[in-house]
Amino acid sequence: MSFSPLLQQLITALRCLPGVGPKSAQRMAFHLLERDQQGALTLAGALEQAIDKIGRCGSCRTLSEVETCEICASTSRDKGMLCVLESPVDLFAVEQTGGFGGYYFVLGGHLSPIDGIGPEDLGIDQLLERLRAGEVRELILATNPTVEGEATAHYIAEQVRDLDIKVSRIAHGVPVGGELEYVDGGTLAHALAGRRSLI
Amino acid sequence: MSFSPLLQQLITALRCLPGVGPKSAQRMAFHLLERDQQGALTLAGALEQAIDKIGRCGSCRTLSEVETCEICASTSRDKGMLCVLESPVDLFAVEQTGGFGGYYFVLGGHLSPIDGIGPEDLGIDQLLERLRAGEVRELILATNPTVEGEATAHYIAEQVRDLDIKVSRIAHGVPVGGELEYVDGGTLAHALAGRRSLI
Ligand SMILES: [Zn+2]
Ligand SMILES: [Zn+2]
Repeated sequence: MSFSPLLQQLITALRCLPGVGPKSAQRMAFHLLERDQQGALTLAGALEQAIDKIGRCGSCRTLSEVETCEICASTSRDKGMLCVLESPVDLFAVEQTGGFGGYYFVLGGHLSPIDGIGPEDLGIDQLLERLRAGEVRELILATNPTVEGEATAHYIAEQVRDLDIKVSRIAHGVPVGGELEYVDGGTLAHALAGRRSLI
Repeated sequence: MSFSPLLQQLITALRCLPGVGPKSAQRMAFHLLERDQQGALTLAGALEQAIDKIGRCGSCRTLSEVETCEICASTSRDKGMLCVLESPVDLFAVEQTGGFGGYYFVLGGHLSPIDGIGPEDLGIDQLLERLRAGEVRELILATNPTVEGEATAHYIAEQVRDLDIKVSRIAHGVPVGGELEYVDGGTLAHALAGRRSLI
């Protein structure tokens, strides 16, 4: 016996969610159909709206449903500080610490020659253009403390070498091999405060 | 700092899924937006189609997108055996054991006066009507081995007392307080084979 086609289709579709295996997808499908049909429709609508409307901020490349995100649109932050991150969720994690008052730039990943991800995919040209405009005094490289994150940070540092900009890397405090998203606020604040100069 | 309205709406909507807390909803939302937009749209479509098209089988009340489900439509099963279950996922679990060749009736829950769930909400009238038609020789009550499941089984047994039908309850083997959905196939097959007569 197998599930009916539409039920099987729903179970399969739920597996696109990270951390959801066959058994939990099955449990989710039955739960929605039997106990929360309204929740299922609300979720369907939220998914469609999010995919349709959420794009990237033209300035920092974080996820945003408006052309310029709330942070980039703010005029009360320090234009001299720019923090480079791998992903929007890292931006949220750093912002949550309350320990950084500058602006951000989100790469949307890290350099990965094996996956064909080069500087152009990470908006590094856009980043360099912004740095050449001259307002940024310090560039904080807060890519993940993984092999790829370190390599990406060093690549960017190399590109910036000729500009009169201090380049720093977030300090120890972030566990090696970890991902910023899972680091607690205190550790992250400490890592930012203790950043060291790269060039 | 908070997430943009549409992102927050998506994170909130994902929490309707069982077992998904705020942190995993956040991770799921970012994953879909950053890495699997196609998966998100497929999921939205699958949810809408499922809610729109999947109803209940007119005969056994299990989830079905056709008027009469595959099992009820089958003519090769034993019309003398009817197994009563709390939910469609339990039907799937019993069917998976391969140890039962009769038909099913799905209550869609258990009696729960505190939640206002009475016999009429569980289709017990429809069940009795079917039993009065005379084809069923044995009624197997396979509600969950919880307090509510036992009470529901005993309520149904009482209603059937005057009919010439053997009424049995699935046997030990199902852990007390557990839910059928999580019982392995072997245990479930054993529990069915060892069912005892109630009246
Ligand atoms: Zn921005
Ligand atoms: Zn049916």
